[in-house]
Amino acid sequence: MVKIQTGAPVEAAGRGLLDRRLLLRTTALIGFLPTFAENEASAEPSQLAVPEWSKVPGSPFVGYGQPSKFEASVVRTATNPPNAPGAGAAWAPLHRLHGTITPNGLHFERSHSGIPDIDPDTHRLLIHGLVKRPLIFTLDALARYPMESRITLMECGGNSLALYSKQPVDGNAQTIHGLASCAEWTGVKLSILLEEAGIQPNGEWLLAEGADAATMTRSIPMKKALDDAMIALYQNGERLRPSNGYPIRLLLPGYEGNMSVKWLRRLKVTAEPTMTRDETSHYTILLPTGKAWQFYYPMDVKSVITHPSPGLNMQAPGLYQVSGLAWSGKGKISKVEISADGGRSWALAVLQEPILPIAFTRFRIPWKWDGGPATLQSRATDEAGNVQPTREKLIAERGNRTIYHYNAINSWAVNEQGALKNVYA
Amino acid sequence: MVKIQTGAPVEAAGRGLLDRRLLLRTTALIGFLPTFAENEASAEPSQLAVPEWSKVPGSPFVGYGQPSKFEASVVRTATNPPNAPGAGAAWAPLHRLHGTITPNGLHFERSHSGIPDIDPDTHRLLIHGLVKRPLIFTLDALARYPMESRITLMECGGNSLALYSKQPVDGNAQTIHGLASCAEWTGVKLSILLEEAGIQPNGEWLLAEGADAATMTRSIPMKKALDDAMIALYQNGERLRPSNGYPIRLLLPGYEGNMSVKWLRRLKVTAEPTMTRDETSHYTILLPTGKAWQFYYPMDVKSVITHPSPGLNMQAPGLYQVSGLAWSGKGKISKVEISADGGRSWALAVLQEPILPIAFTRFRIPWKWDGGPATLQSRATDEAGNVQPTREKLIAERGNRTIYHYNAINSWAVNEQGALKNVYA
Repeated sequence: MVKIQTGAPVEAAGRGLLDRRLLLRTTALIGFLPTFAENEASAEPSQLAVPEWSKVPGSPFVGYGQPSKFEASVVRTATNPPNAPGAGAAWAPLHRLHGTITPNGLHFERSHSGIPDIDPDTHRLLIHGLVKRPLIFTLDALARYPMESRITLMECGGNSLALYSKQPVDGNAQTIHGLASCAEWTGVKLSILLEEAGIQPNGEWLLAEGADAATMTRSIPMKKALDDAMIALYQNGERLRPSNGYPIRLLLPGYEGNMSVKWLRRLKVTAEPTMTRDETSHYTILLPTGKAWQFYYPMDVKSVITHPSPGLNMQAPGLYQVSGLAWSGKGKISKVEISADGGRSWALAVLQEPILPIAFTRFRIPWKWDGGPATLQSRATDEAGNVQPTREKLIAERGNRTIYHYNAINSWAVNEQGALKNVYA
Repeated sequence: MVKIQTGAPVEAAGRGLLDRRLLLRTTALIGFLPTFAENEASAEPSQLAVPEWSKVPGSPFVGYGQPSKFEASVVRTATNPPNAPGAGAAWAPLHRLHGTITPNGLHFERSHSGIPDIDPDTHRLLIHGLVKRPLIFTLDALARYPMESRITLMECGGNSLALYSKQPVDGNAQTIHGLASCAEWTGVKLSILLEEAGIQPNGEWLLAEGADAATMTRSIPMKKALDDAMIALYQNGERLRPSNGYPIRLLLPGYEGNMSVKWLRRLKVTAEPTMTRDETSHYTILLPTGKAWQFYYPMDVKSVITHPSPGLNMQAPGLYQVSGLAWSGKGKISKVEISADGGRSWALAVLQEPILPIAFTRFRIPWKWDGGPATLQSRATDEAGNVQPTREKLIAERGNRTIYHYNAINSWAVNEQGALKNVYA
């Protein structure tokens, strides 16, 4: 009853990248390389040790579960200015994760003055300014409105900032690119609340204010607020985590993360942007000309190879699955190309379904590492036709006097020992 | 610039259920009922208290985050036989969650002898029996194979068992229906490993064995093993939780949860089912005739209203969003109908996109509670045309001498105080 397909592997591009269709015809790979199993000749039950944990009852149930103690190293890493433990960022371990959902305990964070411990019963959301009737909402009131859910990515405007530096970085997918995560968010469409308040004709902007000690404030274009903005109450099914805005946050799909103001307490409808400290001293892109881009909202198309990557070294020549994450703040990912020779040749990766707009998209392709030096790159294209640029092109256009919106093609150099590191290819 | 649509609400069915399209035309609801905001006349910033947490820096980052202390009651509830703390089940708080993903800390569990604490470096997976070459895999070896991801539900064969009892149950969506959850699972397609081992022509079944102290064992049809079965390594992005099979589990999408054997250590290819204790003494459906259904694998089409539901009482007459979860082990959900009058009239709910096969599907519909008694029901239909039966029909066919595969329409009675409870309608 078992049909085993056979077929010869086809190299689709230079340096061992294999045709993506082979991923779907897995047996084509068999016979091509030895199995990765320990012993193929005589594996029998007697070789399976009966471990201690099979001999005694295990632990009882707990109300809220935790990861295995053997995964204790899979944690976020924090970067903070001196003497400011709550101001900075915590980076998600992208190279230790798989799939597309970021578990809540590992979702990246960016805080400007630490994580407030908010009592939801006393928290309020005020909508005021250029409205017909100002409104104050309790959490119970918000829970009465229609909810919607969407799986969407969040990326800090300053993610990957280290790669603006003139020299390559001694880092990995986490410490370089870990200010991006993806979750299922559920909440109330902001347009419902704004329409209920009644926006006056000159209400073209919103001021969004957080309840943290930094009183994080940003100006939001009304067009976005009425399009797909959400007052998020749930993250991956459960209530938001304190580090991600508990009890409520603004969610602006695809926009730089800081605009999805956490611990949201106030939305003021205004005629013009408020020009807050957070949008004038920060989150602007200073160009080589001395001028700056301000209000540059959507995160650009981007990708990073997470497997293999620094810290996940290869042990021996042979077949590997190259895998990573691609995303765009402007829609769905339409394709991801992979190079093993620093961009001279490219092969198409397989994209994991479902491909959702403004969400992490997992890509995968088989690669036969020949044991020699190589440079792995991924290049994502989104449905609007935006293509991830080379670093050279990005720096030529933008210079390196900014730290925001870095989205160039990332390069991992592979040495003959199978170790990987960041390079500028 | 702001266009506010207007429109009159339309009652699509008796007892206040509103046309589902109104969910998409939210402004049609405005003016229909007063706002849920606290005060609509004069809300101003001065009314927003400046709380303590806005005055002092918050907490620093932590490597692995936890829920707010104010959510401490959102936990699984365990049911165990006397003196067997690790044997039983832990029920997910479906009524306290929203969206479709179940966070890993709250994913339901069923264990037969507690949760083993497995060292992944010493864990092995053996594939043997009717194969051309037996194979033993380390975790590192499994990580070399191509991975795939899928968002899929898991439901215990014994979920909702209490509703086989002759009297309605004093319970809620968690304690009655909480042995179901949904997550993004990532791992290696089992067919790859089986084809590598080389299945002999008479290999029609698999024996799957767990490394827990109960040595949980089930027989799996080879057809399913070669179709969509997975050796799962990741759950919602991170490695599996110990309670869900760390470091590896079998994943059989849509089949009763116990067959997705946790802590998987052995797969033996056999010609016939092994008739293990776990599939003969348990997980069979004893019919009124005295005969039993054995090997009844896929979970049937089912749904439950989570909001409102017992414990989430309504405070006052008015507009509510009725929401819940629908699923089928046999494909996608095609529609969910809602009744507020115990099944006499029905209205179509909106299904949250993306609608994925064998996954939780969130449904929503507005309901205008008039303050009188009502009986809320949901009836799901899957793409294969299977319709959730009434309890009367299910019991007539199957009797109530079993505890498995209960999927009848669930009824929540609403009283004049807005409190809900389980009834047999």
